[in-house]
Amino acid sequence: MADNRSQFDGARVLADLNALRAIGTYKTGVHKPTFSEPHLRSLEWLAQRLPEAGLTAEIDGIGNVLGTSAKPGPKLLAGSHLESQNFAGWLDGPLGVVYALEAARVINPDPDVSGAVEVASWCDEEGHFGSFLGSRSYVGGVSEQDIDAARDRTSGKPMRDALREAGLAGRARVIAERGRHVGYLEAHIEQGRTLEDGGLAIGVVTSIVGIWQYRIVFTGEQNHAGTTRMNIRKDAGLALARFCVAIDERFPAACGPRTVWTTGRITLDPGSPSIIPGQAEMLFQIRDDDPRVIERLEELLRSMAAETTTRGPCAVAVERLRTGAPAMMDASFQEAIEAASKSFAGGRSIRMPSAAGHDAQMLATIMPAGMLFVPSIGGISHHWTENTADADIVTGAEVFVDACRRLLAR
Amino acid sequence: MADNRSQFDGARVLADLNALRAIGTYKTGVHKPTFSEPHLRSLEWLAQRLPEAGLTAEIDGIGNVLGTSAKPGPKLLAGSHLESQNFAGWLDGPLGVVYALEAARVINPDPDVSGAVEVASWCDEEGHFGSFLGSRSYVGGVSEQDIDAARDRTSGKPMRDALREAGLAGRARVIAERGRHVGYLEAHIEQGRTLEDGGLAIGVVTSIVGIWQYRIVFTGEQNHAGTTRMNIRKDAGLALARFCVAIDERFPAACGPRTVWTTGRITLDPGSPSIIPGQAEMLFQIRDDDPRVIERLEELLRSMAAETTTRGPCAVAVERLRTGAPAMMDASFQEAIEAASKSFAGGRSIRMPSAAGHDAQMLATIMPAGMLFVPSIGGISHHWTENTADADIVTGAEVFVDACRRLLAR
Repeated sequence: MADNRSQFDGARVLADLNALRAIGTYKTGVHKPTFSEPHLRSLEWLAQRLPEAGLTAEIDGIGNVLGTSAKPGPKLLAGSHLESQNFAGWLDGPLGVVYALEAARVINPDPDVSGAVEVASWCDEEGHFGSFLGSRSYVGGVSEQDIDAARDRTSGKPMRDALREAGLAGRARVIAERGRHVGYLEAHIEQGRTLEDGGLAIGVVTSIVGIWQYRIVFTGEQNHAGTTRMNIRKDAGLALARFCVAIDERFPAACGPRTVWTTGRITLDPGSPSIIPGQAEMLFQIRDDDPRVIERLEELLRSMAAETTTRGPCAVAVERLRTGAPAMMDASFQEAIEAASKSFAGGRSIRMPSAAGHDAQMLATIMPAGMLFVPSIGGISHHWTENTADADIVTGAEVFVDACRRLLAR
Repeated sequence: MADNRSQFDGARVLADLNALRAIGTYKTGVHKPTFSEPHLRSLEWLAQRLPEAGLTAEIDGIGNVLGTSAKPGPKLLAGSHLESQNFAGWLDGPLGVVYALEAARVINPDPDVSGAVEVASWCDEEGHFGSFLGSRSYVGGVSEQDIDAARDRTSGKPMRDALREAGLAGRARVIAERGRHVGYLEAHIEQGRTLEDGGLAIGVVTSIVGIWQYRIVFTGEQNHAGTTRMNIRKDAGLALARFCVAIDERFPAACGPRTVWTTGRITLDPGSPSIIPGQAEMLFQIRDDDPRVIERLEELLRSMAAETTTRGPCAVAVERLRTGAPAMMDASFQEAIEAASKSFAGGRSIRMPSAAGHDAQMLATIMPAGMLFVPSIGGISHHWTENTADADIVTGAEVFVDACRRLLAR
């Protein structure tokens, strides 16, 4: 039995991923917001499987699932997340969790390997209630007050209520035991087209870009959409639209080669068809792995806001909501993934930064960390059509298991 | 007693308006969405006062309050509405209802006047559940299926549920008895600055502009805000912003002297800070009293949408949600208001179109109708700071009562 288990099994990886897709299915993807019923069932699913890998399972007070090994020798921590964006893809998160589970199933029972792979599913990587709350809690960066204040971005439901309904209220949160792990390894779909366009199988992540987030608020004058003549209006929505267009015109001259920026949400207040909006708000985000580029762009943003306010008729205020220093991936982890790619993916790998945020950036603050990407079909992500070819999923899993072996063997 | 009642009482008008402001107060205005508790209490308040004017009160199956007179002779219907926009002003609606109540209190007990003023409060003029549902129901333009389908625009609550909770389910709706009324008279705040800027007391409404409403939908490609490079994005939100700016640039050359247009609501889908919006939607409105101007502008809108779609990367679809033919006010009603202004406002009146929609446009489809405006301070409307000077309120009321007398005397 132990012999069977120590064989890598690509079909088992695909079966597990499809089992998770069957919980909270939406079209060909899933809808599993944090602490939704399908999310909680997915956590239970994982907790029930961890003993197969010789791990003791625990779901902690913030919804992290942790599988702990009593095997002597070095421990490598591996995982990702199980909740999804709303109506999104089946692999964003579960892929890394199932790879970690497979590595643990293959490696932990193997008497020839000293040490074990420990598995983690970090809660709320997708940010329904906050920013990397699960992995941030594990590295010691979340206070009880932070949890008191956290609310679901869509429904406004307090996180405390969601934890209580999930049966997690009062449970302790597991905090990392310093020195326990040689490091953290995470696999994820690329969510871009670099691997697909290059005919490659594996992305060896060098760094995770920082994300800077802003709330930009436009203040005009709320009035009647029929009786207020065009020439005296102070339309905050129109001011916002002009600002979006100006960003699109002026950012390219100031950005870096890989900078991206996005207006993800726009709200007009009061949002009625017959009222000129008196206030308008946009959520704006910039990503780059060079903080100097971000600084330059933020300065441009603030000077554009000042120009708009001076010109009138609406005032603009830029508020920075979040700064994200880029996280560097450990060099020896990159080497291990690259070596594993040579053995199991014909060396079809490339070193690349991650333009998406991942739990690995939280873990990297307290231990060496590495990440491995597999291709995304058409680069589509955060949408239910997200997908990866089965062959690429299996190749990625085999590279992942081998990279884990190499990292434990050092 | 009858003698006292037949005296016009400006202080009573102000006291009634303030009594209504005290129900559902928000700052110096009110928050009374249709079928909210304060709205229902306001309907009850009116129903309890109607007998003072010799009227039999009824709240019908759509929330209209109707006061009916048994006095012989001609009947003039007068009224407005009691619900408000969200967090809006205290006079938008109640002014016209209290003027009608005052006219009924003064005229109905007067044995020298043949006929009576009947009072109406039309439900949901502000469009929380639909478009002029109360007055449209009274003129026979609302089916049971329309009510089945109506939902609160903010909460999504079905109108049937709201009617049931209000205790109105199962009640009959009162439909206009053809030939009963010599016509309909409504007073309202101007909601603009024409009267204030001109030092005038009374606006004699000539027509109510038509409102054309559109949903404009932009379709791009939903994707990850980190991993999708700028040059391959199909950002529906950015396409929408560009379109708003283009409207602002191109409409002035094609519009009429009094045309107004407004984007009141913008929605990005899915509206998450880390996702490039794959779809974006704006509610867009055009108002004019000349349908040929509207036709020209709609044609421009559609050609701009076609250009945008051809240019890419996003497709634009323009859907007309509502067409509103302008409603003409009856000439003899305009003359009666003007004559009353000469007697009680020193002739400080002006003939003007209404750029806002009103219940009078519904009543005008089945009987002669007229409207009278009083000044709005700063032209502010649909906002809690909306206001009118007490002296202007009282002058307007006296003109209104006199106009009613003249219309009944013809």
